[in-house]
This record gives sequence, structure tokens and C-alpha cells, in this order.
Amino acid sequence: MEKNRLEAFSDGVLAIIITIMVLELKVPHGSELAALQPLLPVFLTYLLSFVYVGIYWNNHHHLIKAAHKVNGAMMWANLHLLFWLSLFPFVTGWMGENHFQPVPTALYGAVMLLAAIAYYILQSVIIAQEGRDSKLAASIGRDYKGKASPLLYAVAIAASFFQPWLAGGIYVLVAFMWLIPDRRIARVVEE
Amino acid sequence: MEKNRLEAFSDGVLAIIITIMVLELKVPHGSELAALQPLLPVFLTYLLSFVYVGIYWNNHHHLIKAAHKVNGAMMWANLHLLFWLSLFPFVTGWMGENHFQPVPTALYGAVMLLAAIAYYILQSVIIAQEGRDSKLAASIGRDYKGKASPLLYAVAIAASFFQPWLAGGIYVLVAFMWLIPDRRIARVVEE
Amino acid sequence: MEKNRLEAFSDGVLAIIITIMVLELKVPHGSELAALQPLLPVFLTYLLSFVYVGIYWNNHHHLIKAAHKVNGAMMWANLHLLFWLSLFPFVTGWMGENHFQPVPTALYGAVMLLAAIAYYILQSVIIAQEGRDSKLAASIGRDYKGKASPLLYAVAIAASFFQPWLAGGIYVLVAFMWLIPDRRIARVVEE
Amino acid sequence: MEKNRLEAFSDGVLAIIITIMVLELKVPHGSELAALQPLLPVFLTYLLSFVYVGIYWNNHHHLIKAAHKVNGAMMWANLHLLFWLSLFPFVTGWMGENHFQPVPTALYGAVMLLAAIAYYILQSVIIAQEGRDSKLAASIGRDYKGKASPLLYAVAIAASFFQPWLAGGIYVLVAFMWLIPDRRIARVVEE
Repeated sequence: MEKNRLEAFSDGVLAIIITIMVLELKVPHGSELAALQPLLPVFLTYLLSFVYVGIYWNNHHHLIKAAHKVNGAMMWANLHLLFWLSLFPFVTGWMGENHFQPVPTALYGAVMLLAAIAYYILQSVIIAQEGRDSKLAASIGRDYKGKASPLLYAVAIAASFFQPWLAGGIYVLVAFMWLIPDRRIARVVEE
Repeated sequence: MEKNRLEAFSDGVLAIIITIMVLELKVPHGSELAALQPLLPVFLTYLLSFVYVGIYWNNHHHLIKAAHKVNGAMMWANLHLLFWLSLFPFVTGWMGENHFQPVPTALYGAVMLLAAIAYYILQSVIIAQEGRDSKLAASIGRDYKGKASPLLYAVAIAASFFQPWLAGGIYVLVAFMWLIPDRRIARVVEE
Repeated sequence: MEKNRLEAFSDGVLAIIITIMVLELKVPHGSELAALQPLLPVFLTYLLSFVYVGIYWNNHHHLIKAAHKVNGAMMWANLHLLFWLSLFPFVTGWMGENHFQPVPTALYGAVMLLAAIAYYILQSVIIAQEGRDSKLAASIGRDYKGKASPLLYAVAIAASFFQPWLAGGIYVLVAFMWLIPDRRIARVVEE
Repeated sequence: MEKNRLEAFSDGVLAIIITIMVLELKVPHGSELAALQPLLPVFLTYLLSFVYVGIYWNNHHHLIKAAHKVNGAMMWANLHLLFWLSLFPFVTGWMGENHFQPVPTALYGAVMLLAAIAYYILQSVIIAQEGRDSKLAASIGRDYKGKASPLLYAVAIAASFFQPWLAGGIYVLVAFMWLIPDRRIARVVEE
């Protein structure tokens, strides 16, 4: 039951983040097709960030499902994750409106990196409570994706200053990598 | 229980979409009745889109209710549907502020069409899991409304460039067609 | 369980309405106390509308609690109510920013009136299903408050054009009248 | 079950408050790092308010958990608390954009103070119902933190006019003081 409220609050925040991001897609004044053109990069970053929030929601869902109890550390680790996710609309809007300029593209990666670290902390807090021998710990195993993502974000941040489009490509790549739901945890939950 | 969270997240997103659409109704500066006049088309498109989101919520409710289990494909098919629905405030605002000009009216239809296709995919994913012989599959049957809507949207998109008001009329017609809740699925759920 | 989702969706919409109303309180540019002065009427109308949404949430809560089943008519009667409630931020902002000018004050009353009628319809739909002899019907009884409110709103709308502050006073009066939670229904629910 | 809906509504409002606060972080036009500089105080106040809302959510969660029944007084005491919390985005934006000028800094403290008082009222209403001998009453005990916070806010409000940064420091201090979840209530709930 405690878990329910943690889930409900997180779902609420994630649902709002995913929806207010679309407010950066400002209704243009003109009514011709050309009026939409400057919005294309904003639309593409919106799509990318939508997928990212979807991935976080999906994995968060499986992770909390695997937890048997909620404690204070978990609540704050969860709020810490939500804090970085709440900055997605800002960095999405900034990168989109500036057509993937170096600094906005790097900042996008920095917030992605911090969110990934926050997720890792939340996961560690839950594993610490469930125990190193728990099914959750076993299912996460080596956690290749969880370890590769921060590295890829770091590479993308550096690339932003030389080849911003390469950075954008890395963000898309990481999203694709995660699009596959976390079958490892899903499997444990089903058992 | 997994289903609960899918429902809760979808409800959250739909509740936010339906509510932030009203933000396009910008508070006018004047205080006379005339100050409201330019807002009339925005208000009418808001009403139309409100009804559409209401229809989606209603049918989504019945559809998820008929599902016995949630899998990864269903989660992503659901997020895909929410993505197109999240663009409703944008296309609603653009069509309303431009008084049903050709391109905004066509784009409104295009997002409606993509949302309808996304709903069809979600429905297919659920039927695939429930089985071709399931009550859900039987109840949906020929799915006349589900097949007619995309066609009507396509006609409306084409009509936007010649008779935008005809396109608007078709959008209203489709909404009326769906206003009747999906009794077929409702019946199965009750049994 | 069907009821749960109707409640969850309504709660979501009401929570968003009550919160986005505050967005009309635009952060002023100056940093002196005087910069807040023009915001005072906006703040007061925000407070009034906050109380109204609180009342609707409270009574809605008790009403849905008393219903034993959710049907299609109830869902649409509920969405109809949410539609008028969703216009609260708009009319609140317009009346507040125009310092209780006649037309904005009358429109505020008109939306209040339409929301009251929508609530009455929802209540009637639920009573129709529960039966004229149900506890719910008995507890609502003569429904003095439900009948007096639309009349008072109508008087306030007319008064707006002569004495806008009188209209404002009536809105406050109706809010006070309802601030007392609907004990009649609450009593039935408890039994 | 009644409690569920009170929690769900509060969670919804808190989730929206915490998320729309980020809208005050307006996407800058420039794309250089310097464009972010004026946003730094807005970001810092956003972080502070995020932590405050997180603390309220956390303690609210424990408090409602300890209540065995929901009554009308509790509902209104809860709405009263949500009202002051709903002003957080406004005072956060004003203080942040004005770089901790006296009046905005004092107003921030005033809203914090009123929210603290509202929380105290809600707590008292719940204790009144649970009984002076209840576990909840025993666990809250002397309530040092609950009594110190309003005093500290009052000091900060006064300090705003002489040393705004001292006021800011006090706000940070109070947040740290509360960051430790309310173990007293948590303990009772677990028993």
C-alpha cells in the first residue's frame, strides 16, 4: 500500500512531465505549411524525450514492482530521480529551439546523465534492501545497459562541442537500446 | 495490478491533455463581449477535442478492462497512442486560432488519423494476446466504426484543401459516431 | 473497480484545474510590494475558484461513493461536468484581470451556472440508476442547496451589469453555503 | 477507501505543483552557456521548492497513513494546506527572478509559514479524531520540528529586509532539518 502511493505520485509527475513537454511546441502564427518548418527540430526532440520518459516509466514500473517494501531512502532516491526528469521539458525545449547547438545539446546530455545516475542510485537502494541474493539483484546481473548509458552520455556531451549531430545520434541510440523493456526484471516479477 | 498502473498513467496523461488544451483559450485583454468573439473558433475546437479525448478515455477504459494481462508490447502500443493524443492541444490550438484554414485543418485530421491507427494497433496487440477466439475479439467483431474512422479522416484531410468547413463537419460527424460508448466491449466486460 | 477509474480520472482533472488556475497569477517584473497590488483581484478570484473546485471535489466524492455501478450515461454526465469545470481557469483569469468588470463577472456566473446544471444532471443520472427509493435519493431529499444555487447564479449574472460587486458577493455567498460538506449524502454513505 | 481518494487527489495536486514550478525556468533565446547564467537563481529556488514539496509529500504521506478515518474537517484542512502549497510556483518564480530581493524573499517565507500552519492544523484535526492517547499523538510528541519551523520562517521574513541571503540560508536550513523523514510517525505506522 505504501508502494501504491509512491507509484501514484511518480506516475503523476511522469505523466505531467511527458505532457508539458508538448507545451514547448508553441502554436505558430502563420497557417501555411512553412509555419511548421521551424518547429520540426522541436518536434523531433519532443519525440526523443517522450520516448525517454516512456522508457523511464516502463523501467521504473518494473523496478518498484520488484521492491517488497518502501523506506525513506527509497522515497528520496525516487524524488531525486524525478527532479532530474522534471528538467527534461527545459532541456528538450532549449535543444529543439536552438537546432542542436553545442551548449544546449551538451546540457541535454548532462541532464540525461544525471537522471541515469539517479536511476542507478534508486536501483542500488532497492537492491540494498532486497538483499544481494534477491531475485532482483540476480536479474539485474551485470547491468550492461545501465553501465553503458552514462558512458555514452558522457561521450555525447563531449561530442556536442565538435559534432552536435553525432551527440544527437548517440541520444537516439541509447533510447533504442532501452526501448526493449527490461526483460530481466520483468522475468523476476512474473515468477 | 500491473494493469492498474497502466490505467493510472494513461488516466493521468489524458487528464492533463484534456486540461491543458484549455490553456489555448488565452484570457483576452479587453473586458467587453466583443473581446470573446475571436475566441469562438478556439472554443469550438476545444469542445470538439474535449469530446474526442473523452471518447478515447471511454473506449480505452473498456479496452484495457477487457485485457487480462499487460505485456511490454501493450505498454509501448499504449505510449504510442498517448504520443499522438499529446499532440491534440497543439493541433487544436493551431486550427482554432487560424479559423479552420486548410493546412491547420488538414494537420488536425492527420493527428486524428494517427491516433486512430495507434488505437487500432493497441487493440490488435491486446486481441493478439487474448486470442482470436476471446470474448474481446468476438465483441469487436467487424469493427465498422474502427475501420470507417480512418477513412473519414483521410477524406477530411483531402477536403481541408478545398472545403475546410466540410472537413470540420466530418470531424464532428466522427465524434458523434463514437459518442455512443463501445457497447460491444462493455457487454463482454459485464459478462 | 470501474468506479475507481472514473474517480481517478475526475480527481486528475480536478487536481490539474485547481493547480493551473494559479498560472493566471503571473510572476510580476518588479520586486517591490507595489508590484503585487494589481494581482490582488486575481488572487481573490483564484481563492474563490479554488474553494469552488474544492466544493465540487468534495461533493463529487460523496456522490460517486453513493453510486453502486458506473454506466455510459454516468461517464458522459461526468465528462460534461468536467468540461464546464475546465473553463474555471479561463473565467477566473478574465474576471480577476479585469477587476470584476460586468461582462467577465457575468461570464464567471454563467460557467458556474452551467457547472451547477451539469452536476445536477450527473446527480439525476445516478439517482435514476440507484432508484427513487434508494438511500441516495432519500438523503438528497428536497435538495434546497442544489436548487438555490442556479437561481443565485442567475441573479448574480443579471446583477453583473448593474452592480458587479454584488455579483461577486453572491458568488462568495454560494461558496459559503456549500462549504458545509454534503452531510446528507455523507450520512448515507456511512450507514 | 475514502482515504485513498484524499491521498490520490493530494498526490495529484502535489505532483502538478512540483512539475509546473519548472515552467518558471523559461527556455532562454541564446544558445551559449552565458544564456543560462540569469537562470541560476531561478534554478536554485526551484531546487529548494522541489525539496520542500518533496518533504510535504513525504510527511503528508505518513500523516494520512496514520489516520484511520477521513471526515469533512480533514478534507478541508487538507485543501487549505494544498492552497498554500499551490502558491509555491508563484513565490518560487518571483524570488528566483528577482535574485532574492527583500519583498519576494519575505513573501516566499510568508507562504512557507502559512503552509506550515496549515500542516499543523491538518495534523491537529487528525490527532483530535485519533484521540490524545493515540499512537499518532504519542509519536508526534513534543513536535519540536513542527514548532521550530514557523519561528524560523518568521525570523527569515524579518531578515529578508536586512539580509535577504540570511533569509535564504534559513529556508535551506529548515529544509535540511525536515529532510530526515518523520521517523516518529513512520515508526507508529510500521507497528
